[in-house]
Amino acid sequence: MADKAVTLGIDIGGTNTKYGLVNEGGKIISKGTLATNGKQGASKFFANLCDIIKNEFKSTLERKKIVAIGVGAPNANYYSGKIENPPNLPWNVVDVVSEIRHCIDVPVFVTNDANATAIGEMYYGAAKGLKDFIVITLGTGLGSGIVINGDLVYGADGFAGELGHTCVDANGRMCGCGKKGCLETYVSATGIRRTVFQLLARMNDPSPLRGITYNKLTAKRIAELAKMGDAIAKEAFEYTGRLLGISLANAAAFSRPEAIILFGGLTEAGTILFKPTKKWFEAYLLDIYKDKIKILKSGLKESNSAILGAGALAWDELKKSRR
Amino acid sequence: MADKAVTLGIDIGGTNTKYGLVNEGGKIISKGTLATNGKQGASKFFANLCDIIKNEFKSTLERKKIVAIGVGAPNANYYSGKIENPPNLPWNVVDVVSEIRHCIDVPVFVTNDANATAIGEMYYGAAKGLKDFIVITLGTGLGSGIVINGDLVYGADGFAGELGHTCVDANGRMCGCGKKGCLETYVSATGIRRTVFQLLARMNDPSPLRGITYNKLTAKRIAELAKMGDAIAKEAFEYTGRLLGISLANAAAFSRPEAIILFGGLTEAGTILFKPTKKWFEAYLLDIYKDKIKILKSGLKESNSAILGAGALAWDELKKSRR
Repeated sequence: MADKAVTLGIDIGGTNTKYGLVNEGGKIISKGTLATNGKQGASKFFANLCDIIKNEFKSTLERKKIVAIGVGAPNANYYSGKIENPPNLPWNVVDVVSEIRHCIDVPVFVTNDANATAIGEMYYGAAKGLKDFIVITLGTGLGSGIVINGDLVYGADGFAGELGHTCVDANGRMCGCGKKGCLETYVSATGIRRTVFQLLARMNDPSPLRGITYNKLTAKRIAELAKMGDAIAKEAFEYTGRLLGISLANAAAFSRPEAIILFGGLTEAGTILFKPTKKWFEAYLLDIYKDKIKILKSGLKESNSAILGAGALAWDELKKSRR
Repeated sequence: MADKAVTLGIDIGGTNTKYGLVNEGGKIISKGTLATNGKQGASKFFANLCDIIKNEFKSTLERKKIVAIGVGAPNANYYSGKIENPPNLPWNVVDVVSEIRHCIDVPVFVTNDANATAIGEMYYGAAKGLKDFIVITLGTGLGSGIVINGDLVYGADGFAGELGHTCVDANGRMCGCGKKGCLETYVSATGIRRTVFQLLARMNDPSPLRGITYNKLTAKRIAELAKMGDAIAKEAFEYTGRLLGISLANAAAFSRPEAIILFGGLTEAGTILFKPTKKWFEAYLLDIYKDKIKILKSGLKESNSAILGAGALAWDELKKSRR
């Protein structure tokens, strides 16, 4: 039985939805992708998802059994089982648990994408064996999943862990959330683009960056140029690492994790991001924390991380229910 | 038996140590104080403490039984049971649990004073019935105790919850910890004095504050003057509340508490502190948190809070051991 058991991990994104069967060891047995196409409405989306899963996994499910389903999605609420006003989808409030249980009668668990990534890291990635850690996802924005004593922190209403919206400068950059100076306006793929344009105004150095529009500039291009020695691109990473490092030191003062794990496209920059981050992190830690908290790169393959995170959420909930 | 049971709460301070017998309902049955006199050494101190308790509580203990002991102290570590390099005592590392168990053979639990206060609020104060909250102690410095899902957050090594040393300005005021811009250099009884002196330089308004030395100025005096309309004192509270409010919003983004409870002398200022704190707190919260998180004044009497917190720690540990 244990050998037959798999969870179904589903990651609902603004554009695409990924799904896959995950065994307890973290192997993806079978997987697929469908267009989320939010405009069609949530009920239609879940009906499609259900049909596809049933048909696509038919032969696999003669050998395997889905024991639980985990769903990662933006603004997904662990307690309510709902997606509530997701930023990139024209859905108001969608009861994900009900929608999926119309189709398959197994336990369904829901959380936001950064939280699912954190559980994925705990089961299959860089946080294996850790009980106190923080995962920071660096994509278009900055997401976070916080684990304390082996449990994800959901807070009073399921929406804890929004470090992307902690304030680093009360008079700082406008954020999509309506506030000023949120961490994600500095530290994210979008944030570092903003930083480059600020530096293009402040610095005098010639740079290929002076020939790229804001709309066309990517974090990847900034990283390439930084590695080639471009002064502005290098300074952009230094500045990003400084703000990230100090913010991570603040997070460490909150929960004293064993490690902080950085995930997402921006981490591909490697040393040019990690070196200043670690330097400023250590500089702003209390003495009692210094040289004790690791800053690690994700241990999950980006292409599989969303499915693994959602699958791990389901495994984790099954494990907690047996405690 | 339950009626006979009491815990012994001990709060070890740099100058004085308070102790008292606390019943499960939070009534202090008997209490006392002794000079800590750190120079005499820790072993002598604990021998004295033990003698005093045994003699002083003799008649009470014919009717009551001590079932556990809780100790609150600066730099006390929950996991190790030790006080480690306390800032105001010439002790290096003292094994508090062993020292006390030489004298009385009951379970002994140790935590820092802010954490003990948080548990006291949960059992007997403003956090009764809450499972997710943060207590901020505003004294000479700024301490914090964080409760998530009913449990105090200790982190990987027992030293979590040091919000006084989160950075609010990377180039800001020098802190006793050696770093720059720590929250407690702005928001604490000491912090607001520093703010007044900054404002005396910046502003032109006449004020009785211009006749008081830095050494003689107290937070209490600043509050009195603010209430009488003194422009500099009022601005000092506005500035303090702004930094506190934004920092509490950052903490809310971490653990999404139901309430944040402010404790300590500075809170006696009342509205002149709470009003700007709440205003800036709400302004820097994500929309999903707005108007949902209370900022409350401590529900513990300051004179009894240290004993109640330490006594509640012992009750809480007994309760957890029965889970």
